[in-house]
Amino acid sequence: MKNFSRENSVSTHKRMEILNVTNVVAKAVKESGITNGLVHVWVPHATAAIALNEHDSDLWDDILESFSQLVPIEGKYRHNAKYSWTESEQNAHAHILNCLIKPHVTIPLENGGMQLGTWQSILLIEMDGPRTRHIRVQVMGE
Amino acid sequence: MKNFSRENSVSTHKRMEILNVTNVVAKAVKESGITNGLVHVWVPHATAAIALNEHDSDLWDDILESFSQLVPIEGKYRHNAKYSWTESEQNAHAHILNCLIKPHVTIPLENGGMQLGTWQSILLIEMDGPRTRHIRVQVMGE
Amino acid sequence: MKNFSRENSVSTHKRMEILNVTNVVAKAVKESGITNGLVHVWVPHATAAIALNEHDSDLWDDILESFSQLVPIEGKYRHNAKYSWTESEQNAHAHILNCLIKPHVTIPLENGGMQLGTWQSILLIEMDGPRTRHIRVQVMGE
Repeated sequence: MKNFSRENSVSTHKRMEILNVTNVVAKAVKESGITNGLVHVWVPHATAAIALNEHDSDLWDDILESFSQLVPIEGKYRHNAKYSWTESEQNAHAHILNCLIKPHVTIPLENGGMQLGTWQSILLIEMDGPRTRHIRVQVMGE
Repeated sequence: MKNFSRENSVSTHKRMEILNVTNVVAKAVKESGITNGLVHVWVPHATAAIALNEHDSDLWDDILESFSQLVPIEGKYRHNAKYSWTESEQNAHAHILNCLIKPHVTIPLENGGMQLGTWQSILLIEMDGPRTRHIRVQVMGE
Repeated sequence: MKNFSRENSVSTHKRMEILNVTNVVAKAVKESGITNGLVHVWVPHATAAIALNEHDSDLWDDILESFSQLVPIEGKYRHNAKYSWTESEQNAHAHILNCLIKPHVTIPLENGGMQLGTWQSILLIEMDGPRTRHIRVQVMGE
């Protein structure tokens, strides 16, 4: 059994934004030479997250709008008040959403292919951009 | 170290519904012959999800009601409007909830037993049924 | 490839509380002797959960307050009504939040170090304390 990992960077361009990173992950899986096992996708971030869902930019707007209604960007957050002197730390909403969405997904790999369903793309959910985000792909298997 | 996977189907009968699929997973784990490692439970779906919680149908009603309050089935969703001609695509709420709940769980396996707590069953959360849903069980270990 | 697991206990002191358990996990990882692979952190509980986020007690208060607004402790829950005779079962809110946050995280391990970002600590989220909670750390790799 083998273990392979690769880290890539992507740039986000908005405060809240969804990017399809399936190709970034698929490339690392191919490089790994591993064909059966688990693919773990990880972002080392507390204000961005990873999900699996449909490639549909209209839906992505729905997702981000819903998230913003659940946990508003503007709010009476202690974290934001403490760092009120710096615009880059007005991001409690993103930290809270990260605890719900989580910064990772684990995908089954069989015969060289990630077992994604028809409507499953790997999505990076930016909640405090624009920033450079790191995506770590780890493949364990044989 | 070995890698085993098995896919099973289950039928759901309501729009929003919770099914206990612990037995489906336990059967695949037993078949695998693997006794120590990780059990990865995966649904290749964007409108159903997997969670771990108590087997209590009253609680399941509470969970589904709470989810519907957080992300209402009826709403001004761009995804639904775009596909307004087809009833089967009025499911943005399910896509959004899937991003939060996620379509997978990973369970420790020791001495042949999944290390589920007393109040942890493996639950399929249907959010856009009724449908046939696929559950993939992958076991890695020895 | 090796598989190692260790279970530890921690005590919580409030109804809703966040504890940083990174050191508990790091100690088990070191004990494992495994330096490359995956670290799986699991709580066998339906009313506590595991997340990854910043070590900032002000932010933790924000997170818990936001969770309580999303899924109020007091509510017309069937689960609570059924067990109205026992105070220890007035916890539907915690079960519901557990389905969203989930009781586990999986962290990449490389060269002996968990690949946590600067703002990522491993957080136990207590939602129905005070209680003794069990944290299981499983390491697979080489």
